Order: sequence, then structure tokens, then C-alpha cells
Amino acid sequence: MVVSVFKAKTTLQKQMVVEVQARQYAIKIDEPKELVGTDIGMNPVELVLASLGACQMIAAQVYAKKFKVAYDELHVEIEGDLDLDDFSDKGDVRLVFT
Amino acid sequence: MVVSVFKAKTTLQKQMVVEVQARQYAIKIDEPKELVGTDIGMNPVELVLASLGACQMIAAQVYAKKFKVAYDELHVEIEGDLDLDDFSDKGDVRLVFT
Repeated sequence: MVVSVFKAKTTLQKQMVVEVQARQYAIKIDEPKELVGTDIGMNPVELVLASLGACQMIAAQVYAKKFKVAYDELHVEIEGDLDLDDFSDKGDVRLVFT
Repeated sequence: MVVSVFKAKTTLQKQMVVEVQARQYAIKIDEPKELVGTDIGMNPVELVLASLGACQMIAAQVYAKKFKVAYDELHVEIEGDLDLDDFSDKGDVRLVFT
């Protein structure tokens, strides 16, 4: 068992703006205007999609090396549909990705 | 059903550096040196923790308003343990958060 421990700290700033910190790195997260934010950064859904895509990139790069697979470029395009009904008390559903 | 669709695009740059884009926003992701990266940004695990924390902040803020709960500050500290055994072919486990 090789365990790496990672941490993040998030702090609510003004309205829906959240500062997210991990070690020396910080990012501002917000919601787009259609979700009543001020849109100064990615929203949490975009961030989770970004982290999944980045993880796949890094894993692909490691395995490409291991199995000697050549490539010119590596991209991931990733999409998530967020159902806001539960959040708005309009339905009996959990927030989901599809 | 109120569905919002979010997208992200990730592009492998040099070594483990990944550029992550969502709409007009871009972040550089990397692995720390102990995971053989060059450590120029958060890694994907930190990013997913950050997105979970940011999501909680925004939800808490919305519900605090709705239920008229006053607060001075809102923070989340979030930690994830990554078991790398499966990635390194050293064990019969899936990559997990605990």
C-alpha cells in the first residue's frame, strides 16, 4: 500500500466565489451568471471534469511510456450534465452526473 | 429536470503537465516531484478535492441564505488518501479515496 495524502482548503469569499488552495497553489472558483454567480472562474462541475480529464492524461502518458505507445498529441474532451432539480427542491432526485 | 451541461478539455503538454480548459478559463495541472512530476500546479487529486470543497461552500452559502443562517466565515478542509498500488501493478486494488 503506497498511500499519498492530498489536501485542499476552500474558503468562501464574496457571493459564490470560493478560493481553493492546495499547498502553494490557489484558484478562484465561481458559478456562471445563469447559476447566479459572477463568473470569475470555472465552477465546481467544470473543475471536477477537469480533474478527471487531467488524471486520464497523466495515466495515459505513464502507460504510453510503459507499453512504448507513440503519440503526437493527447487530449480529453469531457462533458457532464448536472440535474439541478434536487438542489432546487423541484424533484426527488440526487444531484447526478450522466 | 433542469439540466446544465458543463465541459472541460484537457491537453497533455510536457511530461505530466496538463492544460485544463473550461470556457475561457485555463489551469495548469502537474504532479508533485515525489510522483515524478515537475510540480507547477495542483495535481488531479488536489483538484478533485478542491472541486468537492468548492461545491460544498456554494451549497452551504445557498442554504444559509434560504434558512437564514448567519455566519462569519465558511471554510472546508478536505483530505484524500490515494493508494497507488494498483497504478504501480503492486496490488489487486482499484485507485481509491478513503
